[in-house]
Amino acid sequence: MFKFRTDLASERRDLYNKAHNIEKDIEGIEAEEEKVNENITISRVKITNEKGEEAIGKPQGNYITIDVKNLKIASEEEIQNASKAVTKELKVLIEKHINGKEPILVVGLGNIYVTPDSLGPKVINEIDITRHLIQYMPEVLDESTREISAISPGVLGTTGIETLEILKGIIENVKPKLVIVIDALASRSIERISSSVQLADTGIVPGAGVGNTRKELTKNTLGIPVIAIGIPTVVEAATIAADSLTLFIKKIQDEGESNDFLNKLQEEDKYKIIKEILTPEEYNFIVTPKEIDGLIEKMKDVVARGINFAVN
Amino acid sequence: MFKFRTDLASERRDLYNKAHNIEKDIEGIEAEEEKVNENITISRVKITNEKGEEAIGKPQGNYITIDVKNLKIASEEEIQNASKAVTKELKVLIEKHINGKEPILVVGLGNIYVTPDSLGPKVINEIDITRHLIQYMPEVLDESTREISAISPGVLGTTGIETLEILKGIIENVKPKLVIVIDALASRSIERISSSVQLADTGIVPGAGVGNTRKELTKNTLGIPVIAIGIPTVVEAATIAADSLTLFIKKIQDEGESNDFLNKLQEEDKYKIIKEILTPEEYNFIVTPKEIDGLIEKMKDVVARGINFAVN
Amino acid sequence: MFKFRTDLASERRDLYNKAHNIEKDIEGIEAEEEKVNENITISRVKITNEKGEEAIGKPQGNYITIDVKNLKIASEEEIQNASKAVTKELKVLIEKHINGKEPILVVGLGNIYVTPDSLGPKVINEIDITRHLIQYMPEVLDESTREISAISPGVLGTTGIETLEILKGIIENVKPKLVIVIDALASRSIERISSSVQLADTGIVPGAGVGNTRKELTKNTLGIPVIAIGIPTVVEAATIAADSLTLFIKKIQDEGESNDFLNKLQEEDKYKIIKEILTPEEYNFIVTPKEIDGLIEKMKDVVARGINFAVN
Amino acid sequence: MFKFRTDLASERRDLYNKAHNIEKDIEGIEAEEEKVNENITISRVKITNEKGEEAIGKPQGNYITIDVKNLKIASEEEIQNASKAVTKELKVLIEKHINGKEPILVVGLGNIYVTPDSLGPKVINEIDITRHLIQYMPEVLDESTREISAISPGVLGTTGIETLEILKGIIENVKPKLVIVIDALASRSIERISSSVQLADTGIVPGAGVGNTRKELTKNTLGIPVIAIGIPTVVEAATIAADSLTLFIKKIQDEGESNDFLNKLQEEDKYKIIKEILTPEEYNFIVTPKEIDGLIEKMKDVVARGINFAVN
Repeated sequence: MFKFRTDLASERRDLYNKAHNIEKDIEGIEAEEEKVNENITISRVKITNEKGEEAIGKPQGNYITIDVKNLKIASEEEIQNASKAVTKELKVLIEKHINGKEPILVVGLGNIYVTPDSLGPKVINEIDITRHLIQYMPEVLDESTREISAISPGVLGTTGIETLEILKGIIENVKPKLVIVIDALASRSIERISSSVQLADTGIVPGAGVGNTRKELTKNTLGIPVIAIGIPTVVEAATIAADSLTLFIKKIQDEGESNDFLNKLQEEDKYKIIKEILTPEEYNFIVTPKEIDGLIEKMKDVVARGINFAVN
Repeated sequence: MFKFRTDLASERRDLYNKAHNIEKDIEGIEAEEEKVNENITISRVKITNEKGEEAIGKPQGNYITIDVKNLKIASEEEIQNASKAVTKELKVLIEKHINGKEPILVVGLGNIYVTPDSLGPKVINEIDITRHLIQYMPEVLDESTREISAISPGVLGTTGIETLEILKGIIENVKPKLVIVIDALASRSIERISSSVQLADTGIVPGAGVGNTRKELTKNTLGIPVIAIGIPTVVEAATIAADSLTLFIKKIQDEGESNDFLNKLQEEDKYKIIKEILTPEEYNFIVTPKEIDGLIEKMKDVVARGINFAVN
Repeated sequence: MFKFRTDLASERRDLYNKAHNIEKDIEGIEAEEEKVNENITISRVKITNEKGEEAIGKPQGNYITIDVKNLKIASEEEIQNASKAVTKELKVLIEKHINGKEPILVVGLGNIYVTPDSLGPKVINEIDITRHLIQYMPEVLDESTREISAISPGVLGTTGIETLEILKGIIENVKPKLVIVIDALASRSIERISSSVQLADTGIVPGAGVGNTRKELTKNTLGIPVIAIGIPTVVEAATIAADSLTLFIKKIQDEGESNDFLNKLQEEDKYKIIKEILTPEEYNFIVTPKEIDGLIEKMKDVVARGINFAVN
Repeated sequence: MFKFRTDLASERRDLYNKAHNIEKDIEGIEAEEEKVNENITISRVKITNEKGEEAIGKPQGNYITIDVKNLKIASEEEIQNASKAVTKELKVLIEKHINGKEPILVVGLGNIYVTPDSLGPKVINEIDITRHLIQYMPEVLDESTREISAISPGVLGTTGIETLEILKGIIENVKPKLVIVIDALASRSIERISSSVQLADTGIVPGAGVGNTRKELTKNTLGIPVIAIGIPTVVEAATIAADSLTLFIKKIQDEGESNDFLNKLQEEDKYKIIKEILTPEEYNFIVTPKEIDGLIEKMKDVVARGINFAVN
């Protein structure tokens, strides 16, 4: 299988097509793009069979990427537009899996104390919760109100407990019919950092993220459908370095300085070698824009409002 | 039963003795005090039978209050001393309930986004977790390392889920033998705010706190012993007002301006009336020192280090 | 002069009128009220001569209070409406004192590390600054862009330097024509906490705030007009207690239990006595809603957007 | 002049010596190293004449780098040791420039809202300030107490005002005899991030940092001696990429796959080309360890305590 170092299905599809020099999608993959306005683009990738699964390395299901250009300088109105796009796409996904107003649990993965990993817990703080009101003061609510609960389970490094273990117990007690999981992702592309939102109704499958091996959070493991909302907030340092090298050699080749050795070098996977060279044992080095704190705040508004209007 | 508006057993015992004009403790209550140094005092109250339970309105068990004077201006060394006192007392309590190095789950109650309620989650972030290391890389640890895990379950208002429900599921999966719960308390006394630590091996029983009715977290409900570490961080505004009124009338009485009506007034419980007068419907008004953010940071160090050295 | 324990001119005027049993304003005070919608009310008090000054204890000038009901549960739209009211009133005040697009310096008083005192610095972080762009890349801006700069000078307790000293030096170098100062105030009324905005074109005069004696920031001391934007974020604990006592005695009087002594007591100023009884030496005790962190965030949006649209 | 992409004098000296294949320092540079313990190393570089200046590209003066290994997992005791090293070195530098207890102003550069840039403002919050006490309650202090004041001026991007302009006004009013400036630096080396402290009595000279051109803060511009305390908190993404490329080619050369073209390539400065390829226009991309929030907290303790004990 092709090696991807991105969690975004739309990036993988582009990489796959480019690597295989194909222009039309292969059988098993359906893709479409919608330009909402100057700043917002939605791309939908559907993997429909095993061929598609194999090509892209992701399970069958729906993958929707909402790209928001210039989030850094986005006005209140543009944030509102982005959150509306999230609401619209999320609503469609939810209705594919549950009926009417069945209860939903929203899960914010990540560590509130690590800025690029804090999006999940921050979104949870903004979710409009109804479950306790339905239990303790139903009279203040519409009869048709959906039961919404939410949790930030923390990360393995500060709890010592797998997220899967925590969620299983909660789901048994709370009995939601669907889980929405918010997660910070690694991206291949610097431009995508905190300016894309990926929705996927296949849950979260391990191997992704910044070097964290985690157990999968899917219908298989949790027993109910899982919609993952992933937001790229970092790029691995080694990814940047490997990409730079590729671009660098290409530049030299373009300038006519090419030679056989370089050509051969360009074919290879430099990431693994660089990863070894670059990474000291103790740290996870990541690349972020210096403005990450502010970007996370804006993206929090996009995602939280997007969810609140989709579920209510 | 006497009405208390404090969660601290040592305050309740003092109030009880004063109200009944007794100097020696009644049967069913054993109390002692230890002065560690100029700034740190430890008081231990043990409730040994139903008579004691009834008098103080708390279940049988051990209640230890560690008072730290002048925490606001405490040096690094004094914080160290306070945390050592916590370690010593906590160790004794733990050994009363479990053997050797049986696994412990540390739970930080409260809301990270509400300053006076943020102590629990902040302590959790500083706990030395071992459970995942024992599972995934036992070779880096001593064989005798205790399994420690930790969780901040959030509060009902932002999760929609009772803490009890969350913890039950986690305990079933993680299987600790003891739970340590960190909780922000209401105090009657302004001086105690963020400068006392109460340890109790009876868990957390409802009715306490700033107007939050919550389900109890005890051996009864969780199935394993529960040690509660409570830190007063607020006083209810109505408590302050009622106390002021009592002091005010006393001052007038002392100045010889007494009359029968005032004397009668002084006997009554003004809290309830004031509470009605004072509290608008929507808010919980609390009294804190303006310096509460900084005090919480210092208290976090005291409690987190206190726990880390007690359990390892 | 009548003793006020509030910084809000509209509260003072109400207290004054009530204390003197007058319904129409005295000469020297002009007051009007405007109801913008169900949740937003604007009251404008203008002090026009020395009589008015003396009555209310504030210098001649314009005082505008914008009250926002239910800010705690305000939607994005209601926050937008509140900020529009700030913009409209602020614009009028600015145009009374400077011409066209003369440069403005925005100053955020307060301490970022003390939640109820953090509003000023937090607003500064959201102000749209143009001064450096006009200097270094004028080509990206409209020719008519106003020069805006901003500063959070910190508080005496963490800098050791009077705000006045810091601002004088900056004003000499930066040469703005008007200063807008954002400041957290003490209020008499719990309901006003973080739900009122007071604009005043008289600057900040000492004696106000939570026990901080500070030097005045006015045209007198800074040499240019000063518009103060004050937001009540706390009530002093002693104020609450004194008010409770007044209400308490009134309740008893109403229930026919009155007597001469109580009647006399009710006339007196209980605040001073209670202040003495209540306050330990080391702390400033304040009353806030438990939800103050969240309220400050919302109020920050109201004020920052209010300023940004008024000055540009 | 040799091109450096680091602000640390000791890194520059190493790079210079390596580039010129010299082992002994050239005339004009004196260097020594002291190993305090297993984790702490101090290196002192003194530039004594113009030759030294030219070689290293920094003005004549003293440059001391304190390296703290494993700060990420440092215990309270190790943090204490590191801060003691800062105290000792800083004291020597101060005494080179002022007499006895002459007043000092501590300046924390940076932006509290951008994690890797927040060290300066965070340290300021921990500095023991005395200036206001000496003015308003001298009776609580020793007669020999030094006058300490402190300020976080903010950054050009959020104030619109050059730091130099702000400081000039303050210095005129406050009249300190020496300035200590705390600043986050760019490093060449990932290992140094938030684990080195550089002291320099030459102030801050422009051209350094993450792409911020700033005015110099030196005796020349401020009129009094300036000690800079610099802490590397980021590496530029392009630096990482260029270094990776160099290492990558070296690895290939070592494996005998060398050729003329590669050899030539290895001589060149790849940074500039990669910088062009890599950097989108709008963002400053930086590399940090994922754990940067926690590292900054620890480094804040090292620096703040280091300063507090050096100046008092």
